[in-house]
This record gives sequence, C-alpha cells and structure tokens, in this order.
Amino acid sequence: MCELEGRRIITLLTDFGTEDMYVPVMKGVILTLNPNVEIIDLSHDVPKFNVQHAAFLLAQAVSYFPEGTVHVAVVDPSVGTTRRPIIVKTKRSLLVGPDNGILYLAVRKEGFESAVTIENESYMLPGRSKTFDGRDVFSPASAYLTMGKALESFGLNIKEIEKPPFTQPIVSGKNLVCEVLYIDGFGNVVTNAEGNLIQKIGLKEKSSIKMKTRRKTLRLKFHLTYGDADRGSFLALVGSHGFFEVAVNQGNAADKLKVKVGERISFSLK
Amino acid sequence: MCELEGRRIITLLTDFGTEDMYVPVMKGVILTLNPNVEIIDLSHDVPKFNVQHAAFLLAQAVSYFPEGTVHVAVVDPSVGTTRRPIIVKTKRSLLVGPDNGILYLAVRKEGFESAVTIENESYMLPGRSKTFDGRDVFSPASAYLTMGKALESFGLNIKEIEKPPFTQPIVSGKNLVCEVLYIDGFGNVVTNAEGNLIQKIGLKEKSSIKMKTRRKTLRLKFHLTYGDADRGSFLALVGSHGFFEVAVNQGNAADKLKVKVGERISFSLK
Amino acid sequence: MCELEGRRIITLLTDFGTEDMYVPVMKGVILTLNPNVEIIDLSHDVPKFNVQHAAFLLAQAVSYFPEGTVHVAVVDPSVGTTRRPIIVKTKRSLLVGPDNGILYLAVRKEGFESAVTIENESYMLPGRSKTFDGRDVFSPASAYLTMGKALESFGLNIKEIEKPPFTQPIVSGKNLVCEVLYIDGFGNVVTNAEGNLIQKIGLKEKSSIKMKTRRKTLRLKFHLTYGDADRGSFLALVGSHGFFEVAVNQGNAADKLKVKVGERISFSLK
Repeated sequence: MCELEGRRIITLLTDFGTEDMYVPVMKGVILTLNPNVEIIDLSHDVPKFNVQHAAFLLAQAVSYFPEGTVHVAVVDPSVGTTRRPIIVKTKRSLLVGPDNGILYLAVRKEGFESAVTIENESYMLPGRSKTFDGRDVFSPASAYLTMGKALESFGLNIKEIEKPPFTQPIVSGKNLVCEVLYIDGFGNVVTNAEGNLIQKIGLKEKSSIKMKTRRKTLRLKFHLTYGDADRGSFLALVGSHGFFEVAVNQGNAADKLKVKVGERISFSLK
Repeated sequence: MCELEGRRIITLLTDFGTEDMYVPVMKGVILTLNPNVEIIDLSHDVPKFNVQHAAFLLAQAVSYFPEGTVHVAVVDPSVGTTRRPIIVKTKRSLLVGPDNGILYLAVRKEGFESAVTIENESYMLPGRSKTFDGRDVFSPASAYLTMGKALESFGLNIKEIEKPPFTQPIVSGKNLVCEVLYIDGFGNVVTNAEGNLIQKIGLKEKSSIKMKTRRKTLRLKFHLTYGDADRGSFLALVGSHGFFEVAVNQGNAADKLKVKVGERISFSLK
Repeated sequence: MCELEGRRIITLLTDFGTEDMYVPVMKGVILTLNPNVEIIDLSHDVPKFNVQHAAFLLAQAVSYFPEGTVHVAVVDPSVGTTRRPIIVKTKRSLLVGPDNGILYLAVRKEGFESAVTIENESYMLPGRSKTFDGRDVFSPASAYLTMGKALESFGLNIKEIEKPPFTQPIVSGKNLVCEVLYIDGFGNVVTNAEGNLIQKIGLKEKSSIKMKTRRKTLRLKFHLTYGDADRGSFLALVGSHGFFEVAVNQGNAADKLKVKVGERISFSLK
C-alpha cells in the first residue's frame, strides 16, 4: 500500500470568480511547488471586496476539514498597500491571507496559537507584482507550508490579527435586535445572532415570534428544521452554521422579505 | 511505482450552488474520513429542489465514470422528514442520496443490484442536524463506502427505491398528452411518457404521428434511433433513458420547436 | 515515502458551463483511462463559441503550471466539420484542442516544438459522435498523453497551427490606438497593447493620459498598482498578465465606461 496518509490539502476562498485565470493560476503556482497537494475550492463567488462575507464563509468551513489543512483566503481590496500578508496557526489549521479581518472568525473558532507576517522573499514568486498577492505571495506560502517550512522562516511573529467590522446583536428581555449577516443560496436569511443567544430570550420549539424588518412585520414560529413549517411558510431556526436564521420552507425568504445583508431585523417573543 | 490503481472517486451532484459553504463542507467531511479519495463535481447548479432534473443529469453522467465510483446526489426538499437516506449498488457504481427518486434513472441505466437504508449512526456525523444530511449523512456514508465498509453495515435491505415525481401523461384512445420533462444538451425534447405507454396508443416503428405544441403542429415518424430519420428531420423515439422523446437527427429539436420544460405536447396516431 | 513526483496534471478550458454534464463526462472519460491524473479546471465560462477569448485565457494560465502539464481547450464551433483535432508540444507543455486558433497564443508564449493531428481511432471513444469531440477525442487523447503515448502515434506531423483573429495596436508618436481584448471579473479593461509598447509612447509612473472611447473622453494617471489611485478613481496600469489596462480602484471600470470586448480605445500622453 501507498503512504498517502500525509496528503496535504489546500483550500481556496476568493472573490476572483470562475471566468478569469486568477484562480487556476494560483493552483498552477501551488502545484508547481508541490504537485502532491490536493486543492479544494471553498468558493470564488464572494461578493467583490466583501471581507466580512468571506470571513463568515471561512469560519463556517474550516472545522470540517482535516487537521493540518492550509486555508488560503484572498479578498484583498488593499492589495499593494501596507496591509500585511500573514499566516495564522490555529489549534487545527494554518490560515493564509491578508491581515484585513478575513481570517478572524475562523481563527476565533479554531483557537489562535501563533501568527507571522510573510516577508521572506525567497518564498514569493520572483518579480512580485503590486496587484496579485494571491498568485505571488499567498499561493507559494501555502505550498511551502505543506512542504514543512517552519512558520518562523516566513517573517516576524505577531500577537494580534485584524477584526472584520461586525456589529453585535442586542438582547433585552424578550427582544433581540440583530442584523442580516449573510443570505445563502436558498434565500435563507442568516443573522448575526449566535444560536445560544436565542435561549436568552426564551425561544423554544414552536414558540411564536414577531419579526420586524424595515418593510414588514410578521409572525412566525421557531422550529427545529425547515420541513416542520408548511410548504411556503416562514419559520425561524438555528441553521447548521449555528446562527439564528429566517427561512421559508422550500421557498426564498430573502426574496419575500426583500432584506439585504447589513439590514436590521428585530424579534420579540410574545 | 506507486500503487494508486485503487484510488477511489466520489462525485457530487447538488442544488447547493457554489456561493455557500455547503459543498466544500461536504468535501471536508469526506476528506477528513478518507484523505485519498478524489472528489469530482458533477454540478451544483441543479435548479433548486428539482429532483427530477437532477435524476436526469445523474443518469447522463454515471456510465462515463470508472467502475466502483461513488456518486452522491443531494437535491433534498424533504430533508429532516421521514424520507429515507439510501445507498444503491448497481452493476457499475454505488449511488448515495435521499430516496426521493433522484437516483432512479441512473440505477435503471446501470442495473439495480441491491440497496440499503442508511441508519447506522456510527457512520454519521455526531450531532446530526435536521437540515443538512448532505454533510451529516451522505458525505460520511460515501467516504466509508470508499473505505470498504460493507453495504449491510449501513442499514436495512430494501427491494425498491422511489421514482422521481414525474407528472403523469394522459392516454386516451390513440392520443397521448404529455409534458416536456427535460431538454438535453443536444436539444432533444424528453417527455414524461415512459416507453411502455406509447405502445398503448399503438405506436410501432415508422408509425406516422401528429404532434401539437403551443406554437406548432407537425407530422413526424416514430423510429428506433436518431439515424433512422433523414439528417435535419424530426423524429420521435424512446431514448436511452426510457422516455418518449422528440428529436431532430443531427439537429436541435428544442430550438426548432421553441418548447420549454413543463410545456404540454400532444401526440396522436393517425 | 510515495513516489508521486510524476503525478500528471490535465487542465480543462471550455465554453460548456457548469450546469450540464459535458465537463464531468470529460472528467469521467479521463479518469477511466488514467485514474491517477489530477484534473484542474481553468474555466468553463468562456463566452460560447468565443475562440479568441479562450486563446487569451489559455495563454495567461499555461506558464504557471508545472512542466509536462496537458492543457485541453475546447471552444469548438466547427465540431463535426473538417477542422482538425490537434496536439501541440511546446517547450513546457502539451496542448490539446481543435485547430481553430484556440491554442495559438499559449504556444507562442511557451515556444512551439512539434504538433500532430489526432487521427488514431484507437485513442478515441468507441462510437465517436459528430457533436462532442471534447468527450470522444480530446479527453481520451489527454489521458493517453499522461500515460506516455508517443506524439507520433496519434496522427500526422503538422508544421503550423491556426491563428485566432486578433488585431494589432497602433503606436504613432505619443498616441496609442488599441482594442479591448478582454474584461476581467473585476471590470478591469484589458487592451491588446502589451506592456513594452507603452514605453514607446513615453508613459512613466504618474504620467497623465487622455483616454477616448466611443462614448467618453477622460484623463487618468498611469500607476504601478490599483491602490495608488484614490478609491473610485480611474487609472491605467500594466496588469499582472503583461497587457496595458484601464481600471477603477475598488470599482468596475468596464461598467463605468460601458465598453465591450473588441471596442476601440485611444490613449495620448500629454
């Protein structure tokens, strides 16, 4: 039998889309340095320049990958300026990207161990451009990490990394005021309220809730799963990502509510 | 040389899109259990909740993959209800998904051998959610299959699997009223009338048929294969998927007829 | 340790999209012949039938992949006619596709060594269709190449391959007249003027340029990177692909200019 236990995985999360050569060029750079690595796409459809959105996606995915996976996240509106390229080691993974908050939620989820800046030019593509660190800095860094290069050899130790600009939900009595954090591909409206918060306002299975958005006020029930609501009906639940969300069973809640990311929603238990 | 002959392939077909973390999370779960498996995307752009469409896509792809491939198909509007998660062994492959008809056409194409429900919780992710069997049930099941776990160890033997929720065509005398079920990449217009139905209206090789769509009425002949019609001519036949279809030999019938999925077509034998 | 140094890579570039089974079927055909090959998607979102666009994408990507990579490019409006299926060996790679110009720019970039037509039917899928050489001819050819089949065994030697229909930019004094070659996913407007051309008209960092499109005339500065311009401001630069381009820092230049591929743009240095 062949010893492949050690096959290393690199994941990629970007706002580069799938129409251009940005992503395949990153893969080519990685595979040229380490042809035995397995590259998995997280997504390349992050809304352009939306660091917060990417941070949320990354935090959802990391814990499902094997220990030792290298996650590269590049949504990088400040490429070419002074923002630092970094590597963060958590208790499970290695995270590579610009220090603009994109790594923060994933690091918090997995537990910070140490971090370095990427400054060693011998780990960069020769002739580094000002516009494409994904290719010139982050891809080769991720490949060298899978080849066992020590963290200290990349640059200087740093103690803290940047946070993304999230707001915090507010709980008072039986009321919760939160924001739309994210709308998934099914139109489920994910809020910035983590699952444990909703116990604080006393929500239980089948509790009736009044929801207010800018445009609408409606009543819905808290359920454990989409299928517990009638087809086409609104419901609230804690999704598989651990955040409180509003959905329509077999329908598109975001379309019906006409809500957008960042919009405020309030909930009150009767 | 390295013994990789046995490298196993898992394919994924879903309606999850590529913007969210649903698909990469499934890949992470698989690679955590078996890091040496190769994962190939069939598509994640199935129209949301369209089990019927996914069933057709799956049946088109399976026979081009190596024997022993594990195909995971998850379009699952009833996740969290009583519909069963299943594994079907065909003469070539292993198919994993909800028992809602999504596997039916591929199984019929490859030849049914045996099937089991997935009930063994030691093959599921701990803390199975109500909303994401793709992650919690189907992904680990597919990984365990590539690791050689016996079919019997997953659950109970079942003799039959569900058919996809096709609407039923209407036969009266020498007339058949049916719907466009699917338009394939060649523009062949597949109806929801199964092959055996067309014998009921008395169709035989070279029978002349009058076809009516919303826009057009035309005459065509029933043939056994595309090449029996003149190049560029319309014909009707029973396709390799077992459904009655309208085609143009070496042409695009859907474009010429301007028909869409769900549109009614009637046929009458003279 | 396992000898995987020789793991071979096949890349795929097509206009087939990701909704149909065309691309996965190609992958299945390849993996059935050589299960140990690694398949990397360049893109499947090439505008339908746009050979020139695909040629540009391929030329951007090839040099970032390991030596010996097999690149398959299929944008093939003339499939089923007399256009030849070919393999080109460059100094670094093997390129497989229809001889319609799609391979030309990549071959020029890497250096032509030799080329053959694909005629040996024992290297094609049995029952080759008239409509899908991607599946029946190019995929098996690429797999056989990774298995070490000699170029001569595929068909006849050819000395020249077809060119795509590009026009050349015109330089006169301090003026440059060029065309939009390509608009990337960020809306950056890439022209057909290579980086070295812009030195001929005397452009230097922070030079002020007057740009004229069909709809607009505006002034912008030449910078080294996007971030050197104010947020929301136009700039000109040489992108990471080596072509002269117009961009908006953290914005979409193509949307603002309403330019399209093929449209003329002129630049003059004051």
